[in-house]
Amino acid sequence: MSILDFLLGRPLKTTEEKKEKLGPAAGIPVFGLDALSSASYGPEAALTLFIPLGAAGIVYILPVTFAIIVLLSIVYFSYRQTIEAYPGGGGSYTVARHNLGAFAGLLAAAALMIDYTLTVAVGISAGVGALVSAAPSLNGYTLPLCLAILVAISLVNLRGVRAAGLFFLAPTYLFVGCMFSMLGIGVIKTLMTGGHPASVVAPPLLRPATAAVSVWLLLKAFSSGCTAMTGVEAVSNGVRAFQKPVVKRAQKTLAAIIMMLILMLAGIAFLTHAYHVGATLPGSGYQSVLSQLTGAVAGKGIFYYLTMASILLVLSLSANTAFSDFPRLCHIIAEDCFLPIPFASQGRRLVYSEGIAVLTVLSAFLLILFDGITDRLIPLFAVGAFLAFTLSQSGMVAHWIRTGGRKARRSLMVNGVGALATGATVVVVTISKFTEGAWVTTLLIPAIIMGMLAVKRHYQRVGRETAEPGELDFAGLRPPVVVAPIAGWDEIAKRAVQFALNLSPDVQAVHVDTGGGSKKLQSEWESLVEEPARKAGVPVPKLVTLKSPYRFVLNPILDFILNLERTYPDRQIAVIVPELVERHWYLHFLHNQRGQWLKALLLLKGSRRIVIIDVPWYLSE
Amino acid sequence: MSILDFLLGRPLKTTEEKKEKLGPAAGIPVFGLDALSSASYGPEAALTLFIPLGAAGIVYILPVTFAIIVLLSIVYFSYRQTIEAYPGGGGSYTVARHNLGAFAGLLAAAALMIDYTLTVAVGISAGVGALVSAAPSLNGYTLPLCLAILVAISLVNLRGVRAAGLFFLAPTYLFVGCMFSMLGIGVIKTLMTGGHPASVVAPPLLRPATAAVSVWLLLKAFSSGCTAMTGVEAVSNGVRAFQKPVVKRAQKTLAAIIMMLILMLAGIAFLTHAYHVGATLPGSGYQSVLSQLTGAVAGKGIFYYLTMASILLVLSLSANTAFSDFPRLCHIIAEDCFLPIPFASQGRRLVYSEGIAVLTVLSAFLLILFDGITDRLIPLFAVGAFLAFTLSQSGMVAHWIRTGGRKARRSLMVNGVGALATGATVVVVTISKFTEGAWVTTLLIPAIIMGMLAVKRHYQRVGRETAEPGELDFAGLRPPVVVAPIAGWDEIAKRAVQFALNLSPDVQAVHVDTGGGSKKLQSEWESLVEEPARKAGVPVPKLVTLKSPYRFVLNPILDFILNLERTYPDRQIAVIVPELVERHWYLHFLHNQRGQWLKALLLLKGSRRIVIIDVPWYLSE
Repeated sequence: MSILDFLLGRPLKTTEEKKEKLGPAAGIPVFGLDALSSASYGPEAALTLFIPLGAAGIVYILPVTFAIIVLLSIVYFSYRQTIEAYPGGGGSYTVARHNLGAFAGLLAAAALMIDYTLTVAVGISAGVGALVSAAPSLNGYTLPLCLAILVAISLVNLRGVRAAGLFFLAPTYLFVGCMFSMLGIGVIKTLMTGGHPASVVAPPLLRPATAAVSVWLLLKAFSSGCTAMTGVEAVSNGVRAFQKPVVKRAQKTLAAIIMMLILMLAGIAFLTHAYHVGATLPGSGYQSVLSQLTGAVAGKGIFYYLTMASILLVLSLSANTAFSDFPRLCHIIAEDCFLPIPFASQGRRLVYSEGIAVLTVLSAFLLILFDGITDRLIPLFAVGAFLAFTLSQSGMVAHWIRTGGRKARRSLMVNGVGALATGATVVVVTISKFTEGAWVTTLLIPAIIMGMLAVKRHYQRVGRETAEPGELDFAGLRPPVVVAPIAGWDEIAKRAVQFALNLSPDVQAVHVDTGGGSKKLQSEWESLVEEPARKAGVPVPKLVTLKSPYRFVLNPILDFILNLERTYPDRQIAVIVPELVERHWYLHFLHNQRGQWLKALLLLKGSRRIVIIDVPWYLSE
Repeated sequence: MSILDFLLGRPLKTTEEKKEKLGPAAGIPVFGLDALSSASYGPEAALTLFIPLGAAGIVYILPVTFAIIVLLSIVYFSYRQTIEAYPGGGGSYTVARHNLGAFAGLLAAAALMIDYTLTVAVGISAGVGALVSAAPSLNGYTLPLCLAILVAISLVNLRGVRAAGLFFLAPTYLFVGCMFSMLGIGVIKTLMTGGHPASVVAPPLLRPATAAVSVWLLLKAFSSGCTAMTGVEAVSNGVRAFQKPVVKRAQKTLAAIIMMLILMLAGIAFLTHAYHVGATLPGSGYQSVLSQLTGAVAGKGIFYYLTMASILLVLSLSANTAFSDFPRLCHIIAEDCFLPIPFASQGRRLVYSEGIAVLTVLSAFLLILFDGITDRLIPLFAVGAFLAFTLSQSGMVAHWIRTGGRKARRSLMVNGVGALATGATVVVVTISKFTEGAWVTTLLIPAIIMGMLAVKRHYQRVGRETAEPGELDFAGLRPPVVVAPIAGWDEIAKRAVQFALNLSPDVQAVHVDTGGGSKKLQSEWESLVEEPARKAGVPVPKLVTLKSPYRFVLNPILDFILNLERTYPDRQIAVIVPELVERHWYLHFLHNQRGQWLKALLLLKGSRRIVIIDVPWYLSE
């Protein structure tokens, strides 16, 4: 068993693809981990903005969460329709491209690519950050821990979709189970006490108010809370990963994810208000909102620690959604020739391995650059996600307008509202987060789009120049002029010349005299090559000696070949490069690598009429 | 003008070598810088050991210096004879190899290679160390300064021997001038005051004695002082670099270098005693012996600073001797096939560029490893130098025994005494410095020797297998079976097949079907290749489709080719690799590099009967 087999599993046949398809139970961990885990930081992000409002501020979490849930529902309905309309995988890119044109598609693609890369870095570093603050002895290992988790997630995904689904099943359902237990107990207690439950472990007292509420503050809280919505579009991108009937299964999965997310968001908002739980400032004394809430509802017993552990696990694994989706996105874009072709091919386990590898490298780069602490990147990624949402919704609007009909009119309404709502959110998020870093996204997106357009242009050019070759021309067949550079008369040179004679009667051996003279070679050539050739009655191969007063070896040969090309404007020139093949890399140092250099120079300076023939010489066969 | 021309000067013709030859005036800086500069640290190294003896200890510098001078004279006379006996460049390696056998030669070579590498690192870091202690604001730039000087010396040497001579002329003679002025004034003052001169600036008071003198202490002082002798053998290695008559000019240069060194050593010993100057401990309050001496003799005026500056300059440039000699040594060894062949060839400026490059890399590695502070390496390098001296002397003894005759008997005496004296020194130095680091040398030397023997064995094997090929066989000429892997029917594939048909009537195009089907290609092949071939009445090229259920592309092709090789045991197999040549490196990412991989796999797994043909496709010519 090779190392690759051990790490990634045996290769899968293309025909085994069916076995790799997902049902909703495995689809939720694969595509929903990101969306679900965001319940643990979205509400907290909104509450943090209410700290200056003191105890009176908590109440505003209710309208803000309500707005987020409404938006989420709109997005749900519209992605549901998208899945139906694009059963081949209808991510924002596909929808925008088909309905709004290539540029809108690329805009969505660039936004999503940024979003996914940031999701990986931020998700992993948030999880590790929580772990380190829970176990301070791990302090100083932040970056190694982040990278280890990154590599683990990447390997699991390279093992195939099914393996990822199985791997992430347990943490996902543990998290969902803990959250719903905690929220359920809390809601029941609240209802039974008429809205005034007693905390088992009291949350920290809220600070006194230092500011008054304002519309701008509420907008900012809304846009911060919207980070809870990232990851929602994953299912619609990955429709093809589901078992048949794909549309039904994908829709079911999406519905389950959104339903669970809405319940969690609503429950958290309701309980924070009931238990008077607010966000705490970072630094010593910091305690996450969910930690306070769980303590208040159920005390700090075994259940508390189980819940905290599940949150931590799900946070650090939330990167997986990006690993499911980014490669699929790149695959679809590469099939349209906007990204390098290797992204389009399935690897040994039927996943798009190149995309997984690139995502790993990009996010590792971000983690290393920020030393594993990527809080500052959070403002960047809501912009990308909501931009993609908006383009996808707008695309669906265009789609329904084209489709027409009664059913379409209702769908148009849903997507239209979605487009307006998410579009407004993009504006709010971009403005409120611009100076905090969203400006980076506004620069990166055009750069990525230009890159993708350049890739497309290149492929179009290659296509234009190579397509439609027509039929083979058997009239002009003629053996090439063969050039064989030789250093002296040894077995390697003999083999090269012998092979040259197999190909063509026009053979010229070239020798460079750097000052050592060439008389010996000349006489050997006469007696060992020319004479036998004359006896055999075949065309005599020529030996050309090039003087090199500056001791250069390659330049004279290159000039000779380019000159020959001009001399025979209608012939092909074949250059034989005799090569001593060393089976051990360190033996390369023992020989000059002139053959390699000559090949590189010929490719660089040559033309279509010059071909290179490697004649290998193996020691002791 | 290219960058190379600017950095290294235009290439020199082989016939211009004569102009690059040296006379004694330029030979002294090129080959003597190391030996001369060691006057600045040799005596100090010996005096350091006398610190525990207090003021009374200074007197012992006289006998120790006397012993060193005697040894130096012996070494001088014997190298003088070596130069005469080996006018082609008679380093320790050549002399030991010719007279004592290959093993002794390699022992000397290994010792010298270590010695030279250490000389570079230690010389530069000593110079920079002195500079930094004079200008503390440079603190923290030690390593960059060291590397900058290293690169500068390396570049100057790559410009050719003559350029190096010119470059190092001024610093060398400035140093010699300053030293002789200082020593001359000091000696005159001492003689005029009857042996009790008054210091202009008094040297620090000597510490009280804490130990008594012993034979062991004197031996250690002697072996430390012997570092002053390294670099003496440089001239004998480089005889070929001199103008005609080479022996005379080389002997003159050697005599001048040794004479100046002896005068300096004697003068320093005399004056330290007269002026009561001792070594000071490192750390604050440290002042070098030459600094104290110059201050005492001439005061701390302009002359003092000029002298100090010249010492500093010469120290940091003393590495140049190693740069003159190491490449010559490697060249001679490589001509005997004990080192990789590229060491043997002259570069664009007629110097052995590979040796210069390797020395630069090795010493840069040492400097970086020790962060620019290489004091700890000093004990290592006296062993290497004296081992080489001893082998060279012993070799000369064997030489004279073989020669016989009257003159030989006297020469034998000189070299015999030299061998005994330097051999004894090796023993003393190795024992007294063993725990300080000389043990590293005793491990490195056998490792290097084993490496050189392995290199020789490899070349012998290659030689055995490739030499004496005999005459060309014109009877068995037969075109090869040509295989052309194609991805589809495009211009690139068409060109590959067309070229294949130029070479041979047996052409097989291979296509790998990874699941996408091959019907289109099949029908195109029939209509655009097979039919025209039939019409033209030429052999029809075959299209072979390989199914690949695991989507691997290269493995099926490789298996097919290896299988073909077995099917035709008496034919050659030519594999055409159609290649899209990108003129920009970044465009490589846009295409899979399957052609490159296929070539690599074929070279790795193939045999002599498989040749590879690169058919390049350039975009838009």
